[in-house]
Amino acid sequence: MLILGIDPGSHITGYGVIDKKDNYLRHIIHGEIKPRKDSLLSTVLSSIYQHLSEVIIENSPQAIALENIFYGKNVRSLIKQAHVRGVIIFAGADKGIPVFEYSPLEVKKAVVGYGRAEKRQVQIMVKAIFKLPVLPPADAADALAVAICHANFLKEQSV
Amino acid sequence: MLILGIDPGSHITGYGVIDKKDNYLRHIIHGEIKPRKDSLLSTVLSSIYQHLSEVIIENSPQAIALENIFYGKNVRSLIKQAHVRGVIIFAGADKGIPVFEYSPLEVKKAVVGYGRAEKRQVQIMVKAIFKLPVLPPADAADALAVAICHANFLKEQSV
Repeated sequence: MLILGIDPGSHITGYGVIDKKDNYLRHIIHGEIKPRKDSLLSTVLSSIYQHLSEVIIENSPQAIALENIFYGKNVRSLIKQAHVRGVIIFAGADKGIPVFEYSPLEVKKAVVGYGRAEKRQVQIMVKAIFKLPVLPPADAADALAVAICHANFLKEQSV
Repeated sequence: MLILGIDPGSHITGYGVIDKKDNYLRHIIHGEIKPRKDSLLSTVLSSIYQHLSEVIIENSPQAIALENIFYGKNVRSLIKQAHVRGVIIFAGADKGIPVFEYSPLEVKKAVVGYGRAEKRQVQIMVKAIFKLPVLPPADAADALAVAICHANFLKEQSV
């Protein structure tokens, strides 16, 4: 079961693909999409769609896992993030891939064990889980974390 | 110059196409996209993209005009609206059509003459401007209004 985890951001969108097989998780790829800061919103949305479409075509994930909106942030950056999320959810729906959403609390709990973990702890745990040679960048680590969260959810479902 | 005006909503998305020729405005079509209230967000976003893509293919607009986010509203409905806006902006960018954004104040000023006009006044003015036989529905009227606003902006630019 290939899972594409995505961490949509108003600046950087992280992504990561993992494979869940017999309760064993394997890291496939991860990366970050960083449009230029002075880009038009339409350019940002197109480049995220194009980039994620390539990741989807190359890896054929059966599910997309996404973090829910965290309402604690500044409204303007939430709104920008929601534009990005809209395009990501559409990109999944357009290719017939189901999209699952998890709260930041659920994601951190799944990876670090408690919901108030720092970003760096998520990076360290993701590195350890997949035995990666180096620490993944923060937004890619978050994307891998939400993919792990979905893998755990599948495990619970199949019990 | 064909202009597609869109009023993105968390429930109903209105659209309208107008033609601006020699400072004369002509109404082409208008309509509303109303996904079922119990639809998944991914279904809503897909149906808006499909519907607008058909409108774009059938009418070949050279510009898309969109209302800016109005921050006065409830944050949750703003966030939902922003998901829809993301997909609309992407739909335009994907087809190489430039997207222009106007504030609700600019749109109302362009159509009714002052920025604090009620929704019904916008409907009445849009009906009068295009000599429509009946009052257009509220969200389609808002979409035609933002298209008129963009047409006025073009007029000012060409002076």
